[in-house]
Amino acid sequence: MGIDPDVAASVRADGVQKQRTRRRRQEILEVASQTFATRGFYNASLAEIADEVGISAAGILHHFKSKDQLLTELLHHRDMADIEEAGHGHGLRGLEFLHHLVDTAARNATRPGITQLYTVLSAESVTTDHPAQAWFRARYDGLRAMVTEALADARDIGELRDDADIAETATAIIAVMDGLQIQWLLAPGTVDMEAVTRRTIDALIAALAPEED
Amino acid sequence: MGIDPDVAASVRADGVQKQRTRRRRQEILEVASQTFATRGFYNASLAEIADEVGISAAGILHHFKSKDQLLTELLHHRDMADIEEAGHGHGLRGLEFLHHLVDTAARNATRPGITQLYTVLSAESVTTDHPAQAWFRARYDGLRAMVTEALADARDIGELRDDADIAETATAIIAVMDGLQIQWLLAPGTVDMEAVTRRTIDALIAALAPEED
Repeated sequence: MGIDPDVAASVRADGVQKQRTRRRRQEILEVASQTFATRGFYNASLAEIADEVGISAAGILHHFKSKDQLLTELLHHRDMADIEEAGHGHGLRGLEFLHHLVDTAARNATRPGITQLYTVLSAESVTTDHPAQAWFRARYDGLRAMVTEALADARDIGELRDDADIAETATAIIAVMDGLQIQWLLAPGTVDMEAVTRRTIDALIAALAPEED
Repeated sequence: MGIDPDVAASVRADGVQKQRTRRRRQEILEVASQTFATRGFYNASLAEIADEVGISAAGILHHFKSKDQLLTELLHHRDMADIEEAGHGHGLRGLEFLHHLVDTAARNATRPGITQLYTVLSAESVTTDHPAQAWFRARYDGLRAMVTEALADARDIGELRDDADIAETATAIIAVMDGLQIQWLLAPGTVDMEAVTRRTIDALIAALAPEED
């Protein structure tokens, strides 16, 4: 029994249509990322994103039902999980993982667009009823848990003191990386994110070093 | 020769009018501070600020010629210079000044409104054409210079090593305080700004301690 040629053509057409839809959604997400980074989420309008993509605002709403939904899908889809990737991707443990965060800071200094997107959105997310507030709260919970786990590993293998307060140290490491981004975005020639991240992580770890015998 | 009673009455009326204008401007600035903190600068409208003050949007524009001008006057007028005040007000020098920054972090945890205002505005300020971008750039330049000066003092009086890299350390201290604010605003019960600021400053300073003889 052969395949009905009309059915086959229709299946192929469906496939082409789905691919087109996927590409268009991807393009909208990319333009939205740039626009939110450059202008801020609140300040960016669907009209200007549509304009940049070359469709109408209604065209965007065909793919994403609102500006809020566009933001939340963007956050879930886009690769903002660099820290997770950077560490786990290389199978690093303990202090090695922490030292690898310095590379993350160095990489962030080569891509101001993504760094700015993250800086602006995370701060805007603390405002009342912001659509990504829960996302950022969960993200910071996850980051603190991940860095705390790396510090716990380091403690377990004797790289840190038994009584080291690792939760506060994890919070500090994440904080310095975030705070540096604001200073760097305003004065990229003055602030060396990589060097300052290294200095701070080294100092925090040295403060938890095992007692020498 | 006596004073013309009409002139005296007119001067008094002028004085009353000026006082009223000053009070009204002050009130608008306070409501705008709260609104920008709660909703973000871009997301807040003059209409809702006017509504909260109990006047019309045109009434606001009588005192401040635009929303941008309202923001810049707010930043110049409001007491966001706590770090400067805290240190210099107490005449602290060297490491004493740095330890005092821990008190600043503790005080910020008691006033979420001002902390949120500063966090949201500073991050939004990195976006293109933001009216307060120059203000925040100058503010961070000033903060780095001030903390660097305190570290230089500490070095001069032998509290730190002669070759201590104080500029990077100053940048790190300011960064950790900023980054902590975002985490704290999203999870105030989880993040202890005072303890983590103390831990980070202590670790950074310990890393620059003079060699023991």
